[in-house]
Amino acid sequence: MIKLPPWIVLDPLLHHWLLEDIGRGDRSTQGLQLAQNGKAVWVAKERGIIAGLTLASRIFYLLEPTTIFTPLIADGETAEKGQMIAEIEGPLECLLMGERAALNIVMRLSGIATLTRKYVEVMADLSTQLVDTRKTTPGLRILEKYAVQVGGAVNHRMGLDDAVMIKDNHILSAGSITNAIAQLRYSIPYPLTIEVETSNFSQVAEAIASGANTIMLDNMTLEEMKRAVELIRREKPHIDIEASGNITLDNLRLVAKTGVDYISSSAPVTRSSWLDLSMRLIPLE
Amino acid sequence: MIKLPPWIVLDPLLHHWLLEDIGRGDRSTQGLQLAQNGKAVWVAKERGIIAGLTLASRIFYLLEPTTIFTPLIADGETAEKGQMIAEIEGPLECLLMGERAALNIVMRLSGIATLTRKYVEVMADLSTQLVDTRKTTPGLRILEKYAVQVGGAVNHRMGLDDAVMIKDNHILSAGSITNAIAQLRYSIPYPLTIEVETSNFSQVAEAIASGANTIMLDNMTLEEMKRAVELIRREKPHIDIEASGNITLDNLRLVAKTGVDYISSSAPVTRSSWLDLSMRLIPLE
Amino acid sequence: MIKLPPWIVLDPLLHHWLLEDIGRGDRSTQGLQLAQNGKAVWVAKERGIIAGLTLASRIFYLLEPTTIFTPLIADGETAEKGQMIAEIEGPLECLLMGERAALNIVMRLSGIATLTRKYVEVMADLSTQLVDTRKTTPGLRILEKYAVQVGGAVNHRMGLDDAVMIKDNHILSAGSITNAIAQLRYSIPYPLTIEVETSNFSQVAEAIASGANTIMLDNMTLEEMKRAVELIRREKPHIDIEASGNITLDNLRLVAKTGVDYISSSAPVTRSSWLDLSMRLIPLE
Amino acid sequence: MIKLPPWIVLDPLLHHWLLEDIGRGDRSTQGLQLAQNGKAVWVAKERGIIAGLTLASRIFYLLEPTTIFTPLIADGETAEKGQMIAEIEGPLECLLMGERAALNIVMRLSGIATLTRKYVEVMADLSTQLVDTRKTTPGLRILEKYAVQVGGAVNHRMGLDDAVMIKDNHILSAGSITNAIAQLRYSIPYPLTIEVETSNFSQVAEAIASGANTIMLDNMTLEEMKRAVELIRREKPHIDIEASGNITLDNLRLVAKTGVDYISSSAPVTRSSWLDLSMRLIPLE
Amino acid sequence: MIKLPPWIVLDPLLHHWLLEDIGRGDRSTQGLQLAQNGKAVWVAKERGIIAGLTLASRIFYLLEPTTIFTPLIADGETAEKGQMIAEIEGPLECLLMGERAALNIVMRLSGIATLTRKYVEVMADLSTQLVDTRKTTPGLRILEKYAVQVGGAVNHRMGLDDAVMIKDNHILSAGSITNAIAQLRYSIPYPLTIEVETSNFSQVAEAIASGANTIMLDNMTLEEMKRAVELIRREKPHIDIEASGNITLDNLRLVAKTGVDYISSSAPVTRSSWLDLSMRLIPLE
Amino acid sequence: MIKLPPWIVLDPLLHHWLLEDIGRGDRSTQGLQLAQNGKAVWVAKERGIIAGLTLASRIFYLLEPTTIFTPLIADGETAEKGQMIAEIEGPLECLLMGERAALNIVMRLSGIATLTRKYVEVMADLSTQLVDTRKTTPGLRILEKYAVQVGGAVNHRMGLDDAVMIKDNHILSAGSITNAIAQLRYSIPYPLTIEVETSNFSQVAEAIASGANTIMLDNMTLEEMKRAVELIRREKPHIDIEASGNITLDNLRLVAKTGVDYISSSAPVTRSSWLDLSMRLIPLE
Repeated sequence: MIKLPPWIVLDPLLHHWLLEDIGRGDRSTQGLQLAQNGKAVWVAKERGIIAGLTLASRIFYLLEPTTIFTPLIADGETAEKGQMIAEIEGPLECLLMGERAALNIVMRLSGIATLTRKYVEVMADLSTQLVDTRKTTPGLRILEKYAVQVGGAVNHRMGLDDAVMIKDNHILSAGSITNAIAQLRYSIPYPLTIEVETSNFSQVAEAIASGANTIMLDNMTLEEMKRAVELIRREKPHIDIEASGNITLDNLRLVAKTGVDYISSSAPVTRSSWLDLSMRLIPLE
Repeated sequence: MIKLPPWIVLDPLLHHWLLEDIGRGDRSTQGLQLAQNGKAVWVAKERGIIAGLTLASRIFYLLEPTTIFTPLIADGETAEKGQMIAEIEGPLECLLMGERAALNIVMRLSGIATLTRKYVEVMADLSTQLVDTRKTTPGLRILEKYAVQVGGAVNHRMGLDDAVMIKDNHILSAGSITNAIAQLRYSIPYPLTIEVETSNFSQVAEAIASGANTIMLDNMTLEEMKRAVELIRREKPHIDIEASGNITLDNLRLVAKTGVDYISSSAPVTRSSWLDLSMRLIPLE
Repeated sequence: MIKLPPWIVLDPLLHHWLLEDIGRGDRSTQGLQLAQNGKAVWVAKERGIIAGLTLASRIFYLLEPTTIFTPLIADGETAEKGQMIAEIEGPLECLLMGERAALNIVMRLSGIATLTRKYVEVMADLSTQLVDTRKTTPGLRILEKYAVQVGGAVNHRMGLDDAVMIKDNHILSAGSITNAIAQLRYSIPYPLTIEVETSNFSQVAEAIASGANTIMLDNMTLEEMKRAVELIRREKPHIDIEASGNITLDNLRLVAKTGVDYISSSAPVTRSSWLDLSMRLIPLE
Repeated sequence: MIKLPPWIVLDPLLHHWLLEDIGRGDRSTQGLQLAQNGKAVWVAKERGIIAGLTLASRIFYLLEPTTIFTPLIADGETAEKGQMIAEIEGPLECLLMGERAALNIVMRLSGIATLTRKYVEVMADLSTQLVDTRKTTPGLRILEKYAVQVGGAVNHRMGLDDAVMIKDNHILSAGSITNAIAQLRYSIPYPLTIEVETSNFSQVAEAIASGANTIMLDNMTLEEMKRAVELIRREKPHIDIEASGNITLDNLRLVAKTGVDYISSSAPVTRSSWLDLSMRLIPLE
Repeated sequence: MIKLPPWIVLDPLLHHWLLEDIGRGDRSTQGLQLAQNGKAVWVAKERGIIAGLTLASRIFYLLEPTTIFTPLIADGETAEKGQMIAEIEGPLECLLMGERAALNIVMRLSGIATLTRKYVEVMADLSTQLVDTRKTTPGLRILEKYAVQVGGAVNHRMGLDDAVMIKDNHILSAGSITNAIAQLRYSIPYPLTIEVETSNFSQVAEAIASGANTIMLDNMTLEEMKRAVELIRREKPHIDIEASGNITLDNLRLVAKTGVDYISSSAPVTRSSWLDLSMRLIPLE
Repeated sequence: MIKLPPWIVLDPLLHHWLLEDIGRGDRSTQGLQLAQNGKAVWVAKERGIIAGLTLASRIFYLLEPTTIFTPLIADGETAEKGQMIAEIEGPLECLLMGERAALNIVMRLSGIATLTRKYVEVMADLSTQLVDTRKTTPGLRILEKYAVQVGGAVNHRMGLDDAVMIKDNHILSAGSITNAIAQLRYSIPYPLTIEVETSNFSQVAEAIASGANTIMLDNMTLEEMKRAVELIRREKPHIDIEASGNITLDNLRLVAKTGVDYISSSAPVTRSSWLDLSMRLIPLE
């Protein structure tokens, strides 16, 4: 089971979302007498993979600790159209005040998980794994990457500080891949890995020789990728190999068959729709 | 021209995005000697409406005030595939450190503007206007609603505090639409408007009679909508009429032709892909 | 009963007030052995309307969750001189540490509610309502407007974002009231209302014609106001009418009798004294 | 000249006030074309002491650094009715967006300074000085105490951490004034002073003997105060003497004549009205 | 017993420390199944004075409220090498996630308390007291000064705002000690004390005459200090006398014997090592 | 040259330090007329490696942008006793207000750099490198690790999120090293490395076989370390080897000679004294 960071890390975000929606107060519920307890259910209006229900639970808790949000499905499981995925009980005004913030994040994350799963299933029988990118909605990096995991893929680096990626311009600036890696090893925390983006064979060879931990094959043909994989496996079998560039559902399996370890794609995050979910209040008696 | 709130409102968000990506530091640029000035351009990799370039400009400014980001296209204009949409000049390390946060937000907002425009164009010759909803990415409400405006639609309320929406449960709780409105007028700031969600004719009639400012026709047939519009126009022509529920590109024009003032849809926000944009560094000489 | 926004909105303020007073620590209670439980009562030292007791309760709770603050009177009720209005029980050091922040806000808000009530009572038998303004103590907008409600008046807009007010300069800049409203309808959330400040008849007429939601009669004579009210009621009975400018306790009733819907005044906020309240510790046995 | 703390201390407050008013954006100025430069003046609508103009200047600066706010009078000087007290030049939309936050704080502080001055002038020829209390508007402690200084009085402690005040309950808890002071000297920073609240002669005598730095004569008659002053001056001339309790403009001078060093009163803060100031835009040509 | 300020003051610091270590999540515990409860003990690996255990307790509480941290020794007591000083029970992943932040602060504070105690014991039979300075680790002022108290010394001022220190440059700027004090009495809160730094006899004499509360003898010889103490005691026995400059364990007792009230030294903070403590998990069965 | 993260990452810390010292205002400089410009120099009072001068520069800048702080020595260079290391020019009150926060951090970091250098020099001719640990002062992790780099050592992981460390308890919980690594690879970002803490040969062998990126030899004898190094080099030469446990200046070189890649020690952070630096104001003329 994939786990989120502790609430101490996430609570500021959740607070912010509630405040964004509530503003100076919920004028509708403040004016009506809605303090009595109510019940509601969440229902999937289309089929998809659910992700983020514990966030919804925490959002209602932050708004009002006596509210009880009970997931009826685990993150990563498939909800069928019409399926109830959660129950909530608490002061009616809190159900209404927290509804939008809670639903919005779960709809967004479930949408990502659902599309990720589609990609992952295409190559489920192969050892290659799908990885995400740093193309994530500003402010939601941790959570969208969590949704990608829930969908079955693997995370790439979380930010600019937990792994190094050497691109064209770094190479130009340092003079060569060899120089760039040498300079970086001197200044980065030693457990960090260095990935080199390569677009041709001589770059692959230099990356191998200069101690790269990961080699990215960027926008290569299938044939070039196969040859690069062979070379790397022969020389330094512990190096991770990542394919990148113009990956679609159509060519994903072919790329995976070249034997690369990872294929990175931003599509599950940037091309997914929200999964349609809604909250239904159980009518007051 | 649509304007964003002043930077004092938005800067905290922009700071947060930069910190989310940079974390404890950009290990790649801190280790290499990238302090020299560099240049880059932003290029559209597909056709679409651009939104949010001033945000990108401010992001680079917050990171390093000497960086100059020059938009080559105005928000709301169409970028063709391959078109340069902005130039940036500044310390190379800042171009690389700010790249992802800046591009991510513009790609997201441009995607929304692009899909909004498609919806809007379907009924461009009619007086009905498209409006958004509160289904927005947590943390991005103001900006996604800005993108919707850039795309040509109109904003609905920004949160729970700047307009009142009376739904089924409020009505049940208050006993009737009439009671609900009476109670609310007593507690809300007097300039705020009250919208009533109706699903049948007797509700429409009661809403008219009890002083609603806006009447939402929820999930009605085209025929029902036409009759409701006629009734409202005859009784209280100043009341705004909004249609809602299962709006798609296919039925949008038909709904508009019923004569409603507004049609609300979350699709431009929840169903849009990011517009594909990329930054190209001008190679160092 | 008037309700405050949820604590998630208000807690940051309350925290800030406690920190403002406590600073690096309460040197008096940290040095003495005051950890044992104590009791205290709050007493009104003059007659007035009480407002804000739940804020006091929350302040003590935030400082120390085991403290129990029990209001003995509801917000909006009149406390007589000498009347006990609340009891508190908890660690003696917490009673002393939270005392000033808690009393200060309740004294301030009760002072506002008390003066508001005086204004409201002058015209209690008329349908005209008193409204407040944006002249509020920086940082206390939501709470001072709550106190105004507790006193019996109605809130005007809460800020620059939940309603539009068109003043002289806007009109000059746009060319005319008609142009200003037309431009604004294009960019504001559609549920927002537009109020036009008018100082003569031709402005009133233009405001009516161009679709204003509210018309403010600014600094007009009683006679002018009466004529304006007649005109507006005849043309567009749904338009709200607000009188403003030099309202005092002396002329308030006369203005109300012109038939305007609302009279705005900043006096309850800017001219009120604090209601004198004090905390008395029950002597330790 | 009285000085405020550096901006690094105050800016967060000023930011907060602007955001409180602007919310999600100023809908009036965002919708109209008000980007051109404008000019305005601030005018006193009644006579009073001005306090806080540099805060107004900084508020406009934080909103938009190119705005120029020029005070025409120094804090502490008297503005006559109708007198211009400041000029502002900058983008018209910024003048309108910052107006309320800036005026509100200066009106509030000037009201305090004006009433303080009245109190101070009653005993201007005597050596006794007026001091404030911790009864200040939550969130504005530093600034309201600044206004009190501008009015001519002296500050008492700023919070619970920069001086010690021993009251009845502390004495009861510690067993005696002597015990309380002994315990406190052990735990407080040594430069901090200890004030003892006394209500009779034996307490005064004990306070003198046990090393109090300041003795407060609380709710004593003029005769008792005189005798207490004599006793203290004879025994320990370096001890500061403060009178407190039911001080009004009527008895202030009589109390001062007892020879006490300080008289504390919350009235300048809790009983003052805002000084009436307004901003006038210079009509656009 | 020395007390810390209430949690409302300290919690933001503790949150910050946890986030500093956890970052985007604890990758080790998130990936393994460590949700079951575990137990651990804290052990002293060298002899020293313990300080800060309640901070550790609160850190684990903030991370996860069900965690129970039980100190086995009180702050200020001596732990022998090998002694167990605390027990913890809670979800295993929380013990591991909070370990470093909690241990780091207690090791740092205990190191300070231990070295402070060494200094204090040198002059334990004399009435002179050791005081600290403003040389404290940025961000830890309150806590390091607490550790100094735990070690047996007294705090000097906490910051620039709770006492005044007049140094050479202030004197030069004001023209004389007399002028400086006169100017300052006019602007500071009246309960604040003024200390004058003196390096020769004429300065001491002027400080006595002009009403200083404290006189610092800076870098004087033992002989000069003795004479200065005599002079001050004769003239104004209530003035506090502080010795400062080049205090070491070697000369501390000699300086104390000159009869000064306080000797200030930054060494307990700037020259202390961390006390070596470690957490041992009780092996899972 | 080692670089710090961009100011957007560090400014909040620097702000916090200034506020910690200034509190509600610098009472000494606010009361005296110290607005005129002044000059000061920073002098080393003992020999050592300087670290953090750009932080000092930024602190003065944040307080007052017109202040100019000019380092006279680069971070990492040795200052001799008595050497001037920086000049500052700006409003005299700002030099005094920022002095302590700025000096405190540079003294702390320079102390760390100085002790680090001593450790590093012992094995300067060997290829083994010194690395730090997570034992850093709460709140100063990034900066103390920067000081370690300035001193010549290498950073270990920055927090719990940028590398994985498998310890005894993880192994117990997962059943074996092999299981632990397998589980973790599934949930961590793929570029992250996994280090295994081993205390005997069978653990080393299992770590090699199960794909660890780094193997820590914890508390082994020199002989054991040599054998472990041989084994690892023979089996998987790309695995990093780290020695840990009871490293002192005395045995450091011997451990290095076993051929390990890294030796980790917390001593440069936990056992270093502050480097003695002081600010001297150039007397006003």
